[in-house]
Amino acid sequence: MTAIVIHEVGPRDGLQVEKQVVPTEVKEGWLRELLDSGLDIVQAGSFVHPEKVPQMADSDELFRRLSALPGPRAQLSGLVLNERGLERALACGVELICMGVSASDTHSRKNTGMGTVEAQRRIIATGQAAMAAGRKVQVSVQSAFGCGFEGRVPDERVLDIVRAYVDAGLLNISLADTAGHAYPEQVRRLFAAARSLGPVAWTAHLHDTYGMGMASVYAAMEEGVGTFETSFAGLGGCPFTKVAAGNVATEDLVHGLQRTGRRQDIQLGRLVELARQVAAWFGRELPGRVYRTGPVGY
Amino acid sequence: MTAIVIHEVGPRDGLQVEKQVVPTEVKEGWLRELLDSGLDIVQAGSFVHPEKVPQMADSDELFRRLSALPGPRAQLSGLVLNERGLERALACGVELICMGVSASDTHSRKNTGMGTVEAQRRIIATGQAAMAAGRKVQVSVQSAFGCGFEGRVPDERVLDIVRAYVDAGLLNISLADTAGHAYPEQVRRLFAAARSLGPVAWTAHLHDTYGMGMASVYAAMEEGVGTFETSFAGLGGCPFTKVAAGNVATEDLVHGLQRTGRRQDIQLGRLVELARQVAAWFGRELPGRVYRTGPVGY
Repeated sequence: MTAIVIHEVGPRDGLQVEKQVVPTEVKEGWLRELLDSGLDIVQAGSFVHPEKVPQMADSDELFRRLSALPGPRAQLSGLVLNERGLERALACGVELICMGVSASDTHSRKNTGMGTVEAQRRIIATGQAAMAAGRKVQVSVQSAFGCGFEGRVPDERVLDIVRAYVDAGLLNISLADTAGHAYPEQVRRLFAAARSLGPVAWTAHLHDTYGMGMASVYAAMEEGVGTFETSFAGLGGCPFTKVAAGNVATEDLVHGLQRTGRRQDIQLGRLVELARQVAAWFGRELPGRVYRTGPVGY
Repeated sequence: MTAIVIHEVGPRDGLQVEKQVVPTEVKEGWLRELLDSGLDIVQAGSFVHPEKVPQMADSDELFRRLSALPGPRAQLSGLVLNERGLERALACGVELICMGVSASDTHSRKNTGMGTVEAQRRIIATGQAAMAAGRKVQVSVQSAFGCGFEGRVPDERVLDIVRAYVDAGLLNISLADTAGHAYPEQVRRLFAAARSLGPVAWTAHLHDTYGMGMASVYAAMEEGVGTFETSFAGLGGCPFTKVAAGNVATEDLVHGLQRTGRRQDIQLGRLVELARQVAAWFGRELPGRVYRTGPVGY
């Protein structure tokens, strides 16, 4: 069995869709728990323009504080959207730089003002600059399984983007289901095809919008995907697509992995307690299941 | 690909845990929609003592009304707990008689006052009587994947119950995850072992208590399980186990099956509309996803 790596993206992908801005001190408390609970990678923020996503305005400050924390702790990742964002990320201690392009031209234009091809050219150059600066880089294909604007996204369009990444030497790649349209058979098919394109370390980023998030995670696992981007308490979605979507909940996946003995080293109890705090802070029930029930007791 | 059969159990397994009693006329309206929307089997009620589960007190009346409806419509199933229940079911037109035994002695005693072995002896006799009366019969193993009281349920205990059913000629068998403890690897393992025991038509009944419901459905599908018991809007659980659990939502599974072309004949739009009505009637958000988002539009 492959070792499964958990990349917690809730503090970025989850919080960015929340209108209620979480104060920096509160976020920092949540992030310290995540960094310290045995997860592998934690995405603490994104380098988007503060006026576009006010929730992310304190990303630089958070990375400065968190990157100073000694190990052992999770690796710190941050989302970079352009060259200006890369400059900010390099200046504040981001350890894994994540960036992506949407397989949907419409989604890409709404996000970046550029179509997919031009956006990818820029992202590849930015990714190469980040590697040249000595940072680890992960690149993604957003809307890889369907788009809230365009509907179906042909597999071949996703595979073309993957090919361009591989040709550019960017071999840490995430396929992201931004709109939540993925279903297990499609996830298997697309990763099976993508795997043949190069020696890539694969990540899947799946949402539960239509109830298929966890089933798609297991389908991806069976195709050898080793890293999963999940969100504490199942927070999440994408502010630029039509349908708000919950990400697969970190605690729910960790709970499943512990039951099969695949990951015994993550402190599930702390994650459950944190998710409860987050739900209490927002004052509403969040999509995750295990934080509400507590783990199976054996 | 196996044809997937949907057995809607929400009107029984879903409603029985709801404290607010749904008037017979309202239930009948919901049931008529379910019967008429292309689903294969619909469980309209259970023949439990009316004082034990007041929500099911109108089961006989509902079956009398619904069994008079002409086809094409779904088959009508009903849950029978004992000989007295079988008499009632035979008298009011139940077309598929469902009964079961818990693999957990503690759960069995709480439900029936008998341990697993004695309870199964009675259930087998009742099932054979139902077959002798010319009815179709489905038998189940409840708490097959774990128990809210006892914790782990050894596979061998489940397989022993299956063997006894097979020996008695009861070859329509459901493995039910009453407590929601199932995870995909376990589902595959248990069905793989059970399949070797005889020429059984298999059903899986899975809950989403810990977020693994749909992933477990797909795991069962890959082991050749052909029938799934699901619940409209994801209503459900078991009133006698410690953890209240939501069943896998019918609309969410049907939506997934339609996207792969596996079931194009079910009227998903009607199911979505019905789930919205049910959620409005109860005045709260229910666990299903697709009834809230609407189907993917392509």
